[in-house]
Amino acid sequence: METMAFIVGSDKFEKLMMSIILSRTGVAMDVETHMFFTFWGLNLLRKGKADKAKVQMPPGMRSLATWMMKRKMMKSGFKKPSEMLSELVKTGKVHLHACSTTLELFGLKKEDLIPEVEDIVGAATFLDIASDADKVLVLA
Amino acid sequence: METMAFIVGSDKFEKLMMSIILSRTGVAMDVETHMFFTFWGLNLLRKGKADKAKVQMPPGMRSLATWMMKRKMMKSGFKKPSEMLSELVKTGKVHLHACSTTLELFGLKKEDLIPEVEDIVGAATFLDIASDADKVLVLA
Amino acid sequence: METMAFIVGSDKFEKLMMSIILSRTGVAMDVETHMFFTFWGLNLLRKGKADKAKVQMPPGMRSLATWMMKRKMMKSGFKKPSEMLSELVKTGKVHLHACSTTLELFGLKKEDLIPEVEDIVGAATFLDIASDADKVLVLA
Repeated sequence: METMAFIVGSDKFEKLMMSIILSRTGVAMDVETHMFFTFWGLNLLRKGKADKAKVQMPPGMRSLATWMMKRKMMKSGFKKPSEMLSELVKTGKVHLHACSTTLELFGLKKEDLIPEVEDIVGAATFLDIASDADKVLVLA
Repeated sequence: METMAFIVGSDKFEKLMMSIILSRTGVAMDVETHMFFTFWGLNLLRKGKADKAKVQMPPGMRSLATWMMKRKMMKSGFKKPSEMLSELVKTGKVHLHACSTTLELFGLKKEDLIPEVEDIVGAATFLDIASDADKVLVLA
Repeated sequence: METMAFIVGSDKFEKLMMSIILSRTGVAMDVETHMFFTFWGLNLLRKGKADKAKVQMPPGMRSLATWMMKRKMMKSGFKKPSEMLSELVKTGKVHLHACSTTLELFGLKKEDLIPEVEDIVGAATFLDIASDADKVLVLA
């Protein structure tokens, strides 16, 4: 396997962590990963947002469950999501793509996104990337 | 890439739109798409239901968020989901398959579904289709 | 198609049933399936938990909807999830893998999991399996 492509369509903490853990493992195995952030997933690329991602739970239990999950992960040696994303991009093997349609729908601009975002692309560019990838996973 | 296969297992607006946008982009790139609607996803094929799909949010915020999302999409030039599905099927490159097991579980009949549905098939037929597809995506 | 790999990242009843129905259909078609249970999905491998899986609905409607869905499935001839999982593993064509990172995060041990679990593996082992699989599906 040489390349993976992910569609990240959710801004939930679990989906973010899956994309981080799988792409990080990919880096260690010399596998390149392209992540396409669309719909709610685009929120994760907004400045300051990745570290505020919440787990997927009903509102009443969500804050506590998120706090517990993050605390356990920190104790297990995980860094903050924003730091992990930044490190992944620095390897040159992980590419963050923002969905242009979603950006327009949400009224966002490139400067609202973290600098690690490589480009803003449409579905056609993503399908080209997905077509060349060995595996395509939807995290939504 | 010649063929994609989607498992649509959710009736949420985001999953419907992802399947529509990806398959529509596929049509423009001469890629054929097979969509297999199962579990809650089957709801999207019931007459009148696709246009009533709600976003995935807790009940208290869901109606407003759905209304806002749909309004923004209309302003961006998107048509109603039912119209987009119909246009996609008319291209001959997008195929809508309804899951026979779900149909039976929900006590539905073929005439409860929109006429654009190509056939009612089981998991074995879907796996055959998926096996031949270049990429298989789960939208659930 | 010879092999499928699933990432089961949710403990919801629909995701469990999708993984069971697809892998069972795979067995009938001589397709091998590897399932990697991670995040909430790991709950499904805890002793006594698979049969208690709930559908994905807001808390107020969840119990009733789960009861109705299970009742309908039993009437349609489906066995309990735990029995179906056990039968699938006995065919030798379906493999249940538990995510080591999640196990550690949740403070669980191998003896907390059902005996059908083949092994406890990390993301690297899973990516190896996924790399060899013809199709990789995320059920999360």
